[in-house]
Amino acid sequence: MNSKLNPYYLTGLVDGEGCFCVSFNKHKNRKKPEIRLLFEIELREDDKEILERVKKTLDCGNIYFLNYSRYKKWRPHYKYKVSNIKEISTKVIPFFQKYPLQAKKKQSFDKFCKVAKLIKAKEHLTSKGIKNIRIIVRDSLDAGNPHVQWGGTSF
Amino acid sequence: MNSKLNPYYLTGLVDGEGCFCVSFNKHKNRKKPEIRLLFEIELREDDKEILERVKKTLDCGNIYFLNYSRYKKWRPHYKYKVSNIKEISTKVIPFFQKYPLQAKKKQSFDKFCKVAKLIKAKEHLTSKGIKNIRIIVRDSLDAGNPHVQWGGTSF
Repeated sequence: MNSKLNPYYLTGLVDGEGCFCVSFNKHKNRKKPEIRLLFEIELREDDKEILERVKKTLDCGNIYFLNYSRYKKWRPHYKYKVSNIKEISTKVIPFFQKYPLQAKKKQSFDKFCKVAKLIKAKEHLTSKGIKNIRIIVRDSLDAGNPHVQWGGTSF
Repeated sequence: MNSKLNPYYLTGLVDGEGCFCVSFNKHKNRKKPEIRLLFEIELREDDKEILERVKKTLDCGNIYFLNYSRYKKWRPHYKYKVSNIKEISTKVIPFFQKYPLQAKKKQSFDKFCKVAKLIKAKEHLTSKGIKNIRIIVRDSLDAGNPHVQWGGTSF
């Protein structure tokens, strides 16, 4: 049975391999984009066990097998993903508030938290809220951060 | 002044972003390849501070700026590198023995330790020793591990 990870270990792993994402999905028949938060870690197929331990440590999320080919040398990966806003708010965010990220990713995380607050307050369903989220995300892009992305599809 | 990192954090970061490498350099006028060990972490330019803290935590190594373009979306990086066998043997290896890697990278590290032992015993200067190191490295490649590499140039 997989054991929990040391929380500082998990912070280090996430500073390297984690992703705090904001996805914008524009549906054909809707005016407003659907905005979601995703916390993800993607590792090679043979490191699935670590993702199981991440899941156990954070007590939420799911693991998916990615078998498509991204580029020539690409090998199958597993992705750990948390997309449920309740789990993000009550488990992911409090964890990284207690065990803070040390690298530049902390900035992504801070913005992720701001967006989470707006989503929890249902502001992502209003034009004003969407605008505010766009501003937060655009700031990230300006800062050259690739982990908060803007697009028509979720990622 | 940059502070030391929590050792478990460093282990997590290295499981994600670290590289335990064996380099084989074949010089024109020498029969035998020059075998070296390298411990490296490469991060984006704006994460240089973390590498400074890694250097402080491990109390060895140097940081280099990598400005060449590897692929279209490539941005400048910094690389932390330890290549001195004494520092590897007395600082890097004991650290990761005390705070063990949790992911598949542990296998690279174990092989890295085996090669370090042979290099310390000067066996990398003999044909038999080189053969043994090749076997260790080949095992790693067979296991699909990209972090112990074989090549004509150092990396």
